[in-house]
Amino acid sequence: MIKVVLLGAGNVAVHLAKAFYKAKNIDFVQRYSRGSKNDSYFDSQIAKTNNLDNLAQADIYVIAIKDDAIAKFSKQLTLKKGLVVHTSGSMPLHALQCKANKGVFYPLQTFSKEQNLDFNNIPIAIETEDIKDIDLLNNFAKSVSNYVSEIDSSQREKLHIAAVFANNFSNFMFTIAKDICDVNNFSFDILKPIILETANKVQTVNPVKAQTGPAKRNDQKIIEEHLSQLAGKQKEIYQLISDSIIQANN
Amino acid sequence: MIKVVLLGAGNVAVHLAKAFYKAKNIDFVQRYSRGSKNDSYFDSQIAKTNNLDNLAQADIYVIAIKDDAIAKFSKQLTLKKGLVVHTSGSMPLHALQCKANKGVFYPLQTFSKEQNLDFNNIPIAIETEDIKDIDLLNNFAKSVSNYVSEIDSSQREKLHIAAVFANNFSNFMFTIAKDICDVNNFSFDILKPIILETANKVQTVNPVKAQTGPAKRNDQKIIEEHLSQLAGKQKEIYQLISDSIIQANN
Repeated sequence: MIKVVLLGAGNVAVHLAKAFYKAKNIDFVQRYSRGSKNDSYFDSQIAKTNNLDNLAQADIYVIAIKDDAIAKFSKQLTLKKGLVVHTSGSMPLHALQCKANKGVFYPLQTFSKEQNLDFNNIPIAIETEDIKDIDLLNNFAKSVSNYVSEIDSSQREKLHIAAVFANNFSNFMFTIAKDICDVNNFSFDILKPIILETANKVQTVNPVKAQTGPAKRNDQKIIEEHLSQLAGKQKEIYQLISDSIIQANN
Repeated sequence: MIKVVLLGAGNVAVHLAKAFYKAKNIDFVQRYSRGSKNDSYFDSQIAKTNNLDNLAQADIYVIAIKDDAIAKFSKQLTLKKGLVVHTSGSMPLHALQCKANKGVFYPLQTFSKEQNLDFNNIPIAIETEDIKDIDLLNNFAKSVSNYVSEIDSSQREKLHIAAVFANNFSNFMFTIAKDICDVNNFSFDILKPIILETANKVQTVNPVKAQTGPAKRNDQKIIEEHLSQLAGKQKEIYQLISDSIIQANN
C-alpha cells in the first residue's frame, strides 16, 4: 500500500481524492485544506487537517493547488521523509521549494467538480528529481490510471502548450459559437452534436484529415461573406485561423 | 410515404442515403450520380441513374453536392413537379436555379464516410421558398431526425458561421495540438481524453463557465513562456485567442 496525503481542495483535488479513495493500492491517510472549501465534495471518511504541522507520515504528498501558489506553499513543508509532487502541467519540477524529494504528477484532463470522470482513462505525466523515486511514483500513478508516461519538465511544458490549444482554445471556439447563437436567437443546443462529433472524430481520424469548411476548400467567397458578418476579435480570429488553415493545406 | 430522389455521392450523400433507406415514412425511389464515386458505400438495392433525363418522379429531390456546384447543377434539372432542396449551410435558398419549387435541408453535422452517425440526433435546418411546401419538408425531415428547425437563409448563414467556429476551427486547434505532439515526439493519444471531455463538458455546461487555462487566469508569466516556445501562425493564434479570452473575462 502506498500512503498518500493530498494537499488542496480545488477541482483537481476533488477528483484526485475520489481516485485515491477508490484505488486498491493506495492508503489515503489524510487530506489537508486550510479552510472548509469544497468540504462537501470530499468523502467525510477521509481524515482532514488544516494544520501543516500535523501532516501524517506518508510515502507521497500530492500538492493540488493553484500554479502560482506552489512555490510559496511548498516552502512551508518541513517533511523529513516522503516524496512531494505537484500536479501542474505548466510548472517545472523546481517550482517545489521544499527540502523533501520532489516530483510531478500531472493528470492531463480538464476538471470541474460537477463532472464525473473515469480517472482510469486520464493520462498522467510523471517526473521525479531523483531517479530512485520514479518506481514509487510510477506505481502510484498506475494505481489510479491506465495511461502513465514519464515526461520531463521541458517536455511537459510542450505538452501543456498542446493542451492549451486542444482544450482551452477549442473551448473558446465553442464560446464564440454560443455567442453567435445568442445574438441571433437560436439555441446553442443545435451545435452540440457537431461539437461532440468533432471531438469524437479525432479519436480515430488524424485532425488534418478531419478538417473541413470554407478555409479548407479555400472558398474565398464564403470566407469574405462570413467576415462581413463578424466584427472585433471574432473577425480577427476568423481571419487568422482561416489563413492558417489555407496555409497548412497549400 | 414521401418519395425522394437523392442527387450526389459525397460524404453527406452517403449518410443521407443510409438515413433515407432506413426511414419508415420515406420511399427512397432513386439516387443519381454521374459516375461510380463511392458506389460501395451505398446500398446496392437503391436504384441508381447517371442520366438526369431519367430521374424518377418524386416528392422531394435532395441535392447533396459541393456548394459551388449547386447553381450550375440545379439549372440542368427540368423537373415539372416536386420540391428541390439543397443541403448546404452556407448557400442561400436561391443558389438553386431550377424552375421547380425550392427549399433547403441542412443537416448540421460533420460527415465522413467511415464514421457511423445516428441521424436521429442530427439537427436539421429547413427552409422553403413557398410556404405551402414547408409541411412536406418538415414531415420529411422529421422522418430522419428528432431535431428539425425552420431557419431562413439569413439565419442559416449565422448558424453556419457558428458551426465554422464550433467544428472547423476547434478541429484546427486539435491539428495544432497534434503538430506540437509530433514535433516533440509524444503521442497525440495523450490529448484525446481531454479533447473528448472538452466537448462533453459543453453539452451541459456553458462554455464561458467551462473556460480554464493561463489566459482565463490572465497568467502573463505562463502566456509569455508559451509564446516564447511558439513561432509563425501558431504563435499568432496563441496570442490572439489568449488576448480574446482575457478581454472576454475582464
